[in-house]
Amino acid sequence: MQEAKVTPWEVKGKVDYYKLIKDFGLQPLSHLPKKFEDFYLFRRGIVFAQRDFKQIAESIENKQPFVMMTGLMPSGRFHFGHKLVADQIIFYQSLGAKVYIAVADIEAYNSRNQSLKELRETAITEYLTNYIALGLDIRKCDFYFQSERSKDGKKASAYYRLASLLARHATFNEVKAIYGHLTPGKLASALLQAADMLHPQLKEFEGKPFPTIVPVGIDQDPHLRLARDISQRIKEYTFTQLSSTYHKFLPGLKGDKMSSSDPASYIALTDTPEEAARKIKKYAFSGGKDTIEEHRKKGGNPDIDVSFQMLKYGLEQDDKKLQKLCNDYKSGDLLTGELKQIAIDKLTQFLKEHKSKRERAKKVVEAITSPSSL
Amino acid sequence: MQEAKVTPWEVKGKVDYYKLIKDFGLQPLSHLPKKFEDFYLFRRGIVFAQRDFKQIAESIENKQPFVMMTGLMPSGRFHFGHKLVADQIIFYQSLGAKVYIAVADIEAYNSRNQSLKELRETAITEYLTNYIALGLDIRKCDFYFQSERSKDGKKASAYYRLASLLARHATFNEVKAIYGHLTPGKLASALLQAADMLHPQLKEFEGKPFPTIVPVGIDQDPHLRLARDISQRIKEYTFTQLSSTYHKFLPGLKGDKMSSSDPASYIALTDTPEEAARKIKKYAFSGGKDTIEEHRKKGGNPDIDVSFQMLKYGLEQDDKKLQKLCNDYKSGDLLTGELKQIAIDKLTQFLKEHKSKRERAKKVVEAITSPSSL
Repeated sequence: MQEAKVTPWEVKGKVDYYKLIKDFGLQPLSHLPKKFEDFYLFRRGIVFAQRDFKQIAESIENKQPFVMMTGLMPSGRFHFGHKLVADQIIFYQSLGAKVYIAVADIEAYNSRNQSLKELRETAITEYLTNYIALGLDIRKCDFYFQSERSKDGKKASAYYRLASLLARHATFNEVKAIYGHLTPGKLASALLQAADMLHPQLKEFEGKPFPTIVPVGIDQDPHLRLARDISQRIKEYTFTQLSSTYHKFLPGLKGDKMSSSDPASYIALTDTPEEAARKIKKYAFSGGKDTIEEHRKKGGNPDIDVSFQMLKYGLEQDDKKLQKLCNDYKSGDLLTGELKQIAIDKLTQFLKEHKSKRERAKKVVEAITSPSSL
Repeated sequence: MQEAKVTPWEVKGKVDYYKLIKDFGLQPLSHLPKKFEDFYLFRRGIVFAQRDFKQIAESIENKQPFVMMTGLMPSGRFHFGHKLVADQIIFYQSLGAKVYIAVADIEAYNSRNQSLKELRETAITEYLTNYIALGLDIRKCDFYFQSERSKDGKKASAYYRLASLLARHATFNEVKAIYGHLTPGKLASALLQAADMLHPQLKEFEGKPFPTIVPVGIDQDPHLRLARDISQRIKEYTFTQLSSTYHKFLPGLKGDKMSSSDPASYIALTDTPEEAARKIKKYAFSGGKDTIEEHRKKGGNPDIDVSFQMLKYGLEQDDKKLQKLCNDYKSGDLLTGELKQIAIDKLTQFLKEHKSKRERAKKVVEAITSPSSL
């Protein structure tokens, strides 16, 4: 397989997460607060690395205020890869974090080929609606678009001003070292991303430099590095250094990264159970052997089996059941077809329940995005 | 003398304006509307070049709406060089233009060494106060800071969004060709300047792409070139191509460019008449000959005589009187000392009147910048 490439704008090849920890200079996750054991993404090592996480753990343990800030790129249908971020947002909200969610529509506009209007539509109908259906309390969070920060001009100016002022403290060499070749559009969005992560600490927002956790996919770390570096150089503001955690990618159905641009690579949260079942049967990469006989004898490999991974990445919440599936698959007791059917059953149940939750969420979204409330 | 360097961030050497017209690809000013004959800066060729000025001339003649947009860099005391811009703003306001004035505090911050707070203070006490004293009707103009565009979040976002979206349509090669080497800070401010010039045409502001005249010193043309180029490439908006005029620099007292960073190079509009007189006597570069005998015989050179230039750049509004001074100086009838005294008399009269106008202007400024109105 080709050598891995992991940048904010492109992920390809086989990702070696432990090499990335070393290359990026991250720390492994350890000494988690007790509550984190309740959350499958931490318990199962899917969120696997961090920077300066300690201050967040302390805030949680000492019941001190902290901010959770992350972003979304409204690039297509909301799939199970995106759900990893949503689940973390909702988890931090349950822990009392002040929640900020940026729709990176300017970054998307500057690096892809869609209009702001399309991007806005996707952000609302796909992302926001599914976030709420999954459990986000929208009234207790600041969900905003990079292209339209706030109805309050003081807040809007404070946010964009920060992005502009950060520019002075970035150097081309640093930016090149972090991102490789950059267009003006990408540079502008990198600085706006830095403002996204830092602005909750401004006086116009939280008023105090609270610790801020930014949970992201590992491909987004360059944005963190730039924001962290500049934040400590800019004299006009005092920022608490950003904290971040990194999660692994849910593999796409065919075994590589789940990607919005290839419908055969993902299951969307709006797929029908039938559609989902068809995709699992047709595309889901198997860790099983070529023949039943060989499988019974040598067993399958759950680490590369997409059905197993989807169960691990959330469909099966019970660790013991998951462990049993893992063991049975490895021993050969469980066949690929059987494992696929277990995943399909779980998916069917999830998608049915999610559909009715989404219907309720749509009404919430309509209420908050109606012309009168905009 | 060294070869001239004319960039938005540095002007040095002897400026050859006719070479700049050719190098920059400008047009000379011609076919001016009749009203422009009343205005000394046009009549005397101090405003000397343009791009797409025709649509502004037509708007004025057909009484159609148009916008006047320009900016100021709050870099020090307000001197007679700055007055050239103020006089143009006030002139266009008298013609019915919708007036926008940007305080380029983010550009100043990103290229100089002052805090936003100091820059804001200077913009108000030096620039805004003197603009009003010179005749600007502040109630009929949109005077704003780049760092804080509007109290209205929709307007603020529309302005900053434009700067971000323009970034996608700029290329590094183009930016390098226009500006030479650029830091991220300068790139960010160049894009914000482009948004300054273009945003009055947005639906959130004038609502229509009215022709927009941007009167600037010739050193600011690179910003115009970038804004003009990108404005016609960005598909999301329809912009009427920007119009611009270019004025020459009022020479500094010692003969080079008037510069805020060298108090001996300028006369500030807040200098006392005594101070101004002292500066003229001590520093004002003379176009006269070394001895009275030689001067009487060969005559002086008004083109390089700073006292004469100050009279030409506004102190003497009467063309006939100015022409007589010119002739008398050339013929040797008028001595340098006499010419200096004429300039000093005019200056004294101006500064005295301006002082009382400024006292009244201060009250206007206090009213509009009081905490309750911010």
